[in-house]
Amino acid sequence: MLEELKERVYKANLGLVELGLVIFTWGNVSAVDRNTGLIVIKPSGVDYEAMKPGDMAVVDFTGRIVEGSLNPSSDTPTHIELYKAFPRVGGVVHTHSKYATAFAQSGRELPAYGTTHADYFRGPVPCTRALYDAETASEYERNTGLVIAETFAGLDPGAVPACLVKSHGPFTWGESCEEAVYHAAVLEYCAQMAMMTESLGQTQPVGQFLLDRHYLRKHGENAYYGQKENVNG
Amino acid sequence: MLEELKERVYKANLGLVELGLVIFTWGNVSAVDRNTGLIVIKPSGVDYEAMKPGDMAVVDFTGRIVEGSLNPSSDTPTHIELYKAFPRVGGVVHTHSKYATAFAQSGRELPAYGTTHADYFRGPVPCTRALYDAETASEYERNTGLVIAETFAGLDPGAVPACLVKSHGPFTWGESCEEAVYHAAVLEYCAQMAMMTESLGQTQPVGQFLLDRHYLRKHGENAYYGQKENVNG
Amino acid sequence: MLEELKERVYKANLGLVELGLVIFTWGNVSAVDRNTGLIVIKPSGVDYEAMKPGDMAVVDFTGRIVEGSLNPSSDTPTHIELYKAFPRVGGVVHTHSKYATAFAQSGRELPAYGTTHADYFRGPVPCTRALYDAETASEYERNTGLVIAETFAGLDPGAVPACLVKSHGPFTWGESCEEAVYHAAVLEYCAQMAMMTESLGQTQPVGQFLLDRHYLRKHGENAYYGQKENVNG
Amino acid sequence: MLEELKERVYKANLGLVELGLVIFTWGNVSAVDRNTGLIVIKPSGVDYEAMKPGDMAVVDFTGRIVEGSLNPSSDTPTHIELYKAFPRVGGVVHTHSKYATAFAQSGRELPAYGTTHADYFRGPVPCTRALYDAETASEYERNTGLVIAETFAGLDPGAVPACLVKSHGPFTWGESCEEAVYHAAVLEYCAQMAMMTESLGQTQPVGQFLLDRHYLRKHGENAYYGQKENVNG
Repeated sequence: MLEELKERVYKANLGLVELGLVIFTWGNVSAVDRNTGLIVIKPSGVDYEAMKPGDMAVVDFTGRIVEGSLNPSSDTPTHIELYKAFPRVGGVVHTHSKYATAFAQSGRELPAYGTTHADYFRGPVPCTRALYDAETASEYERNTGLVIAETFAGLDPGAVPACLVKSHGPFTWGESCEEAVYHAAVLEYCAQMAMMTESLGQTQPVGQFLLDRHYLRKHGENAYYGQKENVNG
Repeated sequence: MLEELKERVYKANLGLVELGLVIFTWGNVSAVDRNTGLIVIKPSGVDYEAMKPGDMAVVDFTGRIVEGSLNPSSDTPTHIELYKAFPRVGGVVHTHSKYATAFAQSGRELPAYGTTHADYFRGPVPCTRALYDAETASEYERNTGLVIAETFAGLDPGAVPACLVKSHGPFTWGESCEEAVYHAAVLEYCAQMAMMTESLGQTQPVGQFLLDRHYLRKHGENAYYGQKENVNG
Repeated sequence: MLEELKERVYKANLGLVELGLVIFTWGNVSAVDRNTGLIVIKPSGVDYEAMKPGDMAVVDFTGRIVEGSLNPSSDTPTHIELYKAFPRVGGVVHTHSKYATAFAQSGRELPAYGTTHADYFRGPVPCTRALYDAETASEYERNTGLVIAETFAGLDPGAVPACLVKSHGPFTWGESCEEAVYHAAVLEYCAQMAMMTESLGQTQPVGQFLLDRHYLRKHGENAYYGQKENVNG
Repeated sequence: MLEELKERVYKANLGLVELGLVIFTWGNVSAVDRNTGLIVIKPSGVDYEAMKPGDMAVVDFTGRIVEGSLNPSSDTPTHIELYKAFPRVGGVVHTHSKYATAFAQSGRELPAYGTTHADYFRGPVPCTRALYDAETASEYERNTGLVIAETFAGLDPGAVPACLVKSHGPFTWGESCEEAVYHAAVLEYCAQMAMMTESLGQTQPVGQFLLDRHYLRKHGENAYYGQKENVNG
């Protein structure tokens, strides 16, 4: 089964390149196998073109390399903390995609300015506080995961599957690594439109009523977007 | 005949991808056959790469699925209201293209800042009012079509073949689905240039005289752009 | 000889598409043959993909179609006036490229903010005044050419081979149609950088000394950029 | 050995095109062979498509052409001064990439707004003072190199491998020409995000603590990004 997951994680990583979300060796995708407690993740600093499915690193929840000869992504401890904090998450993505990172660098949450945002994020995408120097000095990547979890205290990570890490960039997640990649692309798209919207003079987010309406068109038991109803009966 | 229309609607939908106006399953194109009162429209939530001409859904003006096994676009009720309100329209397009959507999210009409705009839109592209919560709660997509029609009271939908739906995004139309796609691309192009124009300090639209002059170069009985005169005589 | 010029004008028109300066049927390139007094120009409203070298229209300086079965570009009278006013110009280009058009729509000249600009334009690229309604009403395209010529009174069209037409877009020219296309691309590049430069807070153009220095690296008898000196000895 | 270096410099120059950092004949890459004191550099004004590895010019530190029939880049004296001033640098790149050039045109250093910047530049990327007219009038390109060296007085060119030349554009360098190209791409990416970050209201750079932390993840003896530790044992 891990071979299949490696193949999927490999393809999901290439998806980041195809979607224009990463250049060079930047960014990483992982997926978790909840049954075995193992995480499959991109190796550190390997070019996307040179990468093969077998290069994916396999680590456990302590970060120990279980399989593979290459170092896992240096961001692995962040991924691990997200899998610990968000038990229903199956895949995690980190990019430095430009518009989402600009919001992260500005230290601002991404406001919900329209229905494109509402279709995927049921509220603003939050931005973490800055890490304290002590958190940066030691176990920096692990603390990055912990500050995301802290930011989501009282928030549903299923309804807002993304977070901006201050001065750093976005992390997104989903039920699968494919969905996490999808959310990374949507986040970037919404961040670009939000920046444009503000440049046109709008700084008032949409109301919660429209936000809920659009989100629930696509999510939950009354969703009616797509082909699910047909498939189900 | 509907087979031919399905093929055209299918190609017009792919055109949105080629023109960079949509990603993933976003956006939709429809065409109406006025003789039979049937509408051909993209199925809901189906990837553009996986889509085939035969997947196009066929519905009547009540929204009933007449042919096809896939759900029509969830925006179908909006398309239907536009075909009802604008009897000379043959095709409708909806996208979340970035610049036009930014204007929609800002709740602003798109001003006519130059002749590129005037060549296709004989005045500003209006933006609808926000929907009331009651309109959002029930028959949301139908109400979206109705608010566009309301916005065009006193306006000629042939002379301004586009509307921005507040907090949502653009709808465009034309005599055919191909023309509606064309207008979606022109709208996005003009919206981008309008944003740039404002960033350079210009907020005064062009005068009606120049607007009319350019519009009538391409439209109406005295049009002289293109090869029509040659063909006709 | 005109067959060769048609081939070159055809390729130069396709160059506009490859350089991302036009979409659909927008934009046009012409070249003049000074010996015969004939102008070869893109036909009006014909798709770039469908166009063939033989479709290029040939007109004389009165605008009369000398060869070809297709209407010449509706902007032909503008091209003619530029060939009349600027006797050393061999090719003319018109586009609605986004950044240059944004400056035109803002009614502002393009300031020289750096050496990229100075390498090709020995000063700001001017913007015309608005046309009077009477100039718009009758012989609009001819008057567009005349207002460009008026704008260049006292300016050297060889040293600044471009003009922005207010509320409309850029025209560029050169010794050949290929050079005119090149200048259209450089103009768009410089316009984009100028907008960015202003957004960073700079509104002071570079001094004339640096402007001259860079321009003369590439132009005139003391130019030393490229391989000309090698070729000449 | 120089044949191999010519091949690498040739490929590195093409890399600028692939990364979207140059158009036409703009930009240039060189590499130095410290053993022989020879520099391999792009020829002046030659199209990237037409260029062959054997077209690379070879010059010594006085600028004398040692090999090759084509003129070296007109910016060669700048490259030479950088190799003189920065003894550990193996490759130099010059581009007019849009966002970095906009900062140069604005006369502003590029602030470090986040970890993407910090991963490669351990502090702001400085901008030179303007050249005096006398420096522009005579030995302009050599003086451009000298003003970069002057700007780096007290700075470590290994820790900040890039400089913006006021009103002109960026120069970057690295241990090899490949690394210099890499830094040119990263600089452009960071410049774009910095502009966006400021447009969102942030003008405060990140603190030195985070800057150092990220830089040292990738550089120096305690670096742990990538596969080096695995390779070493």
